[in-house]
Amino acid sequence: MTQVADFEQMWRDLAPVGRSASSGGYFRQPWHAAELELRAWFREAAAARGLEVDEDPFGNLVAWWGPDTGAEKVLTGSHLDSVLDGGAYDGPLGVVSSFAALDLLRERGVVPTRRLGLAAFVEEEGSRFGRACLGSRLAVGATTWEAARELTDRDGVRLGDVIEGPTDDAGSTLLEGVVTYVELHVEQGRGLIDLDAPVGVHDAIWPHGRYRYDIAGRADHAGTTRMEDRADPMLTYAMTALAANKQARLSGQRATFGRIDVRPNGTNAVPSHVTAWLDARAESDAALAALVAAIEKQAGDRAERDGTRVAVTAESVSGEVAFDAALRDSLVQRLGGVPVLPTQAGHDAGILQDAGIPTAMLFVRNPSGVSHSPYESAETADCLAGVEALATTLTGLVEA
Amino acid sequence: MTQVADFEQMWRDLAPVGRSASSGGYFRQPWHAAELELRAWFREAAAARGLEVDEDPFGNLVAWWGPDTGAEKVLTGSHLDSVLDGGAYDGPLGVVSSFAALDLLRERGVVPTRRLGLAAFVEEEGSRFGRACLGSRLAVGATTWEAARELTDRDGVRLGDVIEGPTDDAGSTLLEGVVTYVELHVEQGRGLIDLDAPVGVHDAIWPHGRYRYDIAGRADHAGTTRMEDRADPMLTYAMTALAANKQARLSGQRATFGRIDVRPNGTNAVPSHVTAWLDARAESDAALAALVAAIEKQAGDRAERDGTRVAVTAESVSGEVAFDAALRDSLVQRLGGVPVLPTQAGHDAGILQDAGIPTAMLFVRNPSGVSHSPYESAETADCLAGVEALATTLTGLVEA
Repeated sequence: MTQVADFEQMWRDLAPVGRSASSGGYFRQPWHAAELELRAWFREAAAARGLEVDEDPFGNLVAWWGPDTGAEKVLTGSHLDSVLDGGAYDGPLGVVSSFAALDLLRERGVVPTRRLGLAAFVEEEGSRFGRACLGSRLAVGATTWEAARELTDRDGVRLGDVIEGPTDDAGSTLLEGVVTYVELHVEQGRGLIDLDAPVGVHDAIWPHGRYRYDIAGRADHAGTTRMEDRADPMLTYAMTALAANKQARLSGQRATFGRIDVRPNGTNAVPSHVTAWLDARAESDAALAALVAAIEKQAGDRAERDGTRVAVTAESVSGEVAFDAALRDSLVQRLGGVPVLPTQAGHDAGILQDAGIPTAMLFVRNPSGVSHSPYESAETADCLAGVEALATTLTGLVEA
Repeated sequence: MTQVADFEQMWRDLAPVGRSASSGGYFRQPWHAAELELRAWFREAAAARGLEVDEDPFGNLVAWWGPDTGAEKVLTGSHLDSVLDGGAYDGPLGVVSSFAALDLLRERGVVPTRRLGLAAFVEEEGSRFGRACLGSRLAVGATTWEAARELTDRDGVRLGDVIEGPTDDAGSTLLEGVVTYVELHVEQGRGLIDLDAPVGVHDAIWPHGRYRYDIAGRADHAGTTRMEDRADPMLTYAMTALAANKQARLSGQRATFGRIDVRPNGTNAVPSHVTAWLDARAESDAALAALVAAIEKQAGDRAERDGTRVAVTAESVSGEVAFDAALRDSLVQRLGGVPVLPTQAGHDAGILQDAGIPTAMLFVRNPSGVSHSPYESAETADCLAGVEALATTLTGLVEA
């Protein structure tokens, strides 16, 4: 089967790019070597299919199929970047499936009345500049270039020094005329495992946010300073991390401290400062606010005891996204009644939906149940079922 | 007064080297720019006094005063490197005071019958290659070059690629013939504040050790993975850090987690791995063993609950050091009954004492009570009292 061979060839081409030999995970941060190679691959895959590629001033890419008739456009795709030490599928599965679905549409002789775009949004994970879905936010104007250009990565490099950005106030015109977006993604949990289904549809994204905890203490010698004379921010941090876990468990929500930066981070020094990031998600905006407030309260109580000071900054907070109900219902019907579940993960699809573009999400079973991890996986048969579902969906949309 | 002016000039020369403009702390890691500048300063200070400088293959420096008569030698000095974001005095005060004390001896017309060496040992803090007192350990042969050359810094650079080391089995001959060592140091606690004294003598160093905790969990998406499906090593770490603090408080000892390395350290990823370093000190070898065992036990219990795995590696453990009693008693008598206290901090003096060289330590009041910190401090009057005490001590030793 040409389709299977082509699909597998795309995976073989992508497999080594940015892969860590020690962990088996991927490091595909925007505008670093691995991610630039993925962009080059995207342009080659488009060129091999005779598609024109547009790139906006932020690095978002769209490969276009079909003549620009001025009619409303349909968009599919996902992203190519990864979290640090992430999996192979989160992002690339949606991009590869877009090309594979297009191949199916052509094989089946579909004649589009609407132009179809295949998209790769930049910095979806926020793993370099700390702002998730940065590319799509810039593309729809939800984040301004004036704000984004000042973001810095872990090495202190400004985004404005990495890319030139727009030369005038126009921003991105890449999504002009787009009336529908469909993103296919690998599942990031165990929903389809439990339901024994290869493909599903997301109806909503949980509200979520990132909160920076700056905990200030006093540097001291780890040997000579009596325990009772210390103001150790590591203790405040440790209690806060445990409190976050407990609050999330008790309420059925999610809270994680996965990133920490300690100063001076020396074995024989009580730290002067701990910065840590809370990732919190909940089933409703009210539940998220309650969760975040409970954690902050416990951090403040512990800080008082430790003689430290805590400042909490919400770096990004996204309310609940409900995907377009009519689009979702037509998809489910067309696909013969696939499961419908919410997701706890943020996606460019959420940004486009929030920007007023009716959006839908397909997702493919992940037998490991884990993502943002080298263990993330997907069976070829399930991926091909995903491509088939995407092709079916797109056929209905471009022929509409 | 020439003495005060010279002493203050030495501080002015050293003050800017390796200083962070943001924290006011010092970054003087061995063989990096700041520390190399301090070595150049040491050679200039020696040359200005007409002293010859010997350097051993590990980078330890000694400036010699008086003819090499073959008689037993007396050594004083300290170190020039700092912890990350450390204070100005820890190390340099002993080196600067050595030069200042020598100036006093000459001013007073002391004629040495024993050769006097002024030493600057390398990598005392272990802040680059993780092994405290590395220079003095190599100088006395307590650590072999075969083992030390394989040590790596945080960037993965091998010590063997930074310095050439000895070309044969001889190692260092720098301390040959040294029969006494006296190290002056800034106090690293509040002992002399409470006793209202400018200078004291240490009689012992508490047993202490560094223990690496490798906590392995499973990387996961911070949003989509249910709390109960995780194996999060950050939780095991957090509980262990709190347990260490509690155990030390309850037993009157010291335990600190000041350094942590998280993989992948991403905001939206449950970490796959946490490495953290425990610094533990106690008043006796038995108390240290009990403290360390209690912390490891609590870490193991928590790991079982978290579904993670903990491996503890003792990177370095030093038993109690009792400084030479006769030398200490003669110092105290000569200085007119200064306070005698143990220290919880490791020092090159402990390594030389353990190697069979009778050793003593003077220490100078630190009004902040803190060290390994930008807040570390010392009054000029107290420093000059320290120089005077050191000069008095050395006079007795080189005229003996």
